Amino acid sequence: MTERLQDYAALAGRLGVDAVALVPGPNFTRMTGHSFHSHERPLVILVPPEGPPAAIVPNLELDSFALLGFEGPVFDWRDQDGYAGAFAALAAHMPLGRIAVEGQVMRVFVHHAFKTAFQGLEIVDAEAEIAGLRLCKTPEEVAALERALALSEAALAELLDGVRPGQTEKALESRLIQLLFHHGAEDLSFGPIVAAAENSALPHASARADYALKEGDALLIDFGGRWGGFAADITRTVFVGHASAEAEAVYATVLAANDAGQAATRAGVTAHEVDDAVISVLEASPYADRIRTKTGHGLGRDVHEAPYIMRGNGQVLEAGMVFTDEPGLYDTASFGVRIEDVLLVTDTGCRQLTRFARGLTVVAT
Amino acid sequence: MTERLQDYAALAGRLGVDAVALVPGPNFTRMTGHSFHSHERPLVILVPPEGPPAAIVPNLELDSFALLGFEGPVFDWRDQDGYAGAFAALAAHMPLGRIAVEGQVMRVFVHHAFKTAFQGLEIVDAEAEIAGLRLCKTPEEVAALERALALSEAALAELLDGVRPGQTEKALESRLIQLLFHHGAEDLSFGPIVAAAENSALPHASARADYALKEGDALLIDFGGRWGGFAADITRTVFVGHASAEAEAVYATVLAANDAGQAATRAGVTAHEVDDAVISVLEASPYADRIRTKTGHGLGRDVHEAPYIMRGNGQVLEAGMVFTDEPGLYDTASFGVRIEDVLLVTDTGCRQLTRFARGLTVVAT
Repeated sequence: MTERLQDYAALAGRLGVDAVALVPGPNFTRMTGHSFHSHERPLVILVPPEGPPAAIVPNLELDSFALLGFEGPVFDWRDQDGYAGAFAALAAHMPLGRIAVEGQVMRVFVHHAFKTAFQGLEIVDAEAEIAGLRLCKTPEEVAALERALALSEAALAELLDGVRPGQTEKALESRLIQLLFHHGAEDLSFGPIVAAAENSALPHASARADYALKEGDALLIDFGGRWGGFAADITRTVFVGHASAEAEAVYATVLAANDAGQAATRAGVTAHEVDDAVISVLEASPYADRIRTKTGHGLGRDVHEAPYIMRGNGQVLEAGMVFTDEPGLYDTASFGVRIEDVLLVTDTGCRQLTRFARGLTVVAT
Repeated sequence: MTERLQDYAALAGRLGVDAVALVPGPNFTRMTGHSFHSHERPLVILVPPEGPPAAIVPNLELDSFALLGFEGPVFDWRDQDGYAGAFAALAAHMPLGRIAVEGQVMRVFVHHAFKTAFQGLEIVDAEAEIAGLRLCKTPEEVAALERALALSEAALAELLDGVRPGQTEKALESRLIQLLFHHGAEDLSFGPIVAAAENSALPHASARADYALKEGDALLIDFGGRWGGFAADITRTVFVGHASAEAEAVYATVLAANDAGQAATRAGVTAHEVDDAVISVLEASPYADRIRTKTGHGLGRDVHEAPYIMRGNGQVLEAGMVFTDEPGLYDTASFGVRIEDVLLVTDTGCRQLTRFARGLTVVAT
């Protein structure tokens, strides 16, 4: 882990903090190559700008932690004793006045443990800068993401082959999850969204056990499996039996917006510009009142990460960044359509990492 | 949700805070009956001791949030604008000097958003008190947990029937997950632990793609599926082909410790007393140096919650509490054994909610 650790030491220097503090999650896994259950037990690695790092580790994780090849003092603690003593021991070893933390990952009880052990400590939320080290993906990372996408697409293809009127959203969700693992997923990227009819108009719907698919329904499936630490994220919206003229028109609008996102993407443009290209297509359509979301989010070890593709975000896209292009139109009185692809930014444009068919699809015919 | 909301209002009064703040997670789901993806978007419900609650909700979740029947002002925000404005609007509506939060659930970026919007705000970690409302399970909640356990046991039985030398830990893990969903799990309680040979001696091991089961291996499986919001958690350790004399002796010791936990449990005893009964059996054995963990943890909507069954914890057990009885012995040079059951505390003793066979089991014979 030594090489990757240098990235965080250098970041601590740039941020002007005494240490970067990482807890189990995507940055921790990137740095160490290992993942940990965290639950109720604090586990923290502190990386100062110079010199060896230090760690606080639950005693029962010491053997797992030893696999990391960590070169620095480790302050462990047992459930019976609590963790305050380990934080105090760390404070005696490594005086800290200001640390940078992952605001989206670290929880308040760890924040409070630091504040208790270190008098006057300033805790800076450096989520953007810490996660920023993951912005540009290496070729190996892109390959892992492509494998996650490929297995997810194989699961989706098999699921759609078997869709029939009368099935519940919940049954389809269960089948999709089984297919993901059958095709080699190591984990879910997130709990899948399987939403039919008016439920498809909720961007984050929950599958219903009491709603059975019927002819003419929209069926929105937003899901993904993980492989090699990377999270796929795909959405397709299909229609059961037939698609109405309105469904066809809405679908064509969303697809055109998605295409506009792909056309606008290349190194050097901003996230704002890509979102503007996408949303402008939706706004110019008769369905502008159905807009609920921005274009997309970065994708990698986390299912939502930078760059966030939205107006007002001046972040300049660079080759190696990966994000979702997922415009949608949502009408809670009828149905929603979302088409989500994954784009890899290149110097001259972008590479579409999703390979699944994007045209209007009618299933169970 | 009105009835459950009163629990949190009353708690805010007892804690002497201006509001209890809940974010998506087990307490939020208990109060509202709904779960939400949280990711990078703050979603918070504030419950004051008296008067209507208030909420901060991402704009794209408004339609899902409307399903809650929430009766109070909702301050929404769009990704493009950020959430600072919604926190400021909340501050103008509901002045707060001191709030109670779930320290194990709320993340630092939400903590910082509160601190920025509310000058001088004191944020109290009331994890124990807030989660404490979930300590005693209703009969309906116990029934949901029993269903989660039953489907998990069905998956385990089918998995063990198919175990053969030569299979990898990773392949078994994938098969187990597919079986869980096949048998009706709505989610995983956590990423399963499937660990053979010396890997079984790591309390939280990761499944290896490059280790194939061989004759004589211990095979530890710690896993569970969710149903109705409740999380099963079971561990069984079996042996492949045959069990050595040492394996038999270690297994018998762990089982005796597990039995001692069951015998010691009833309303009125402390968590300390139960752990002491269990650990004393291990300490009196020739394998005392293989002790790594306490007896167990509470189980319900969260896979690790109070009561924590450990020495020093004076919490008095009450009828309706549920916890895991999971002693283990771990030798990283050879193997680990853990036997984990789920106990429901009753006035006169306890009810074993796990039904899976507990005796020494040799598979692939």
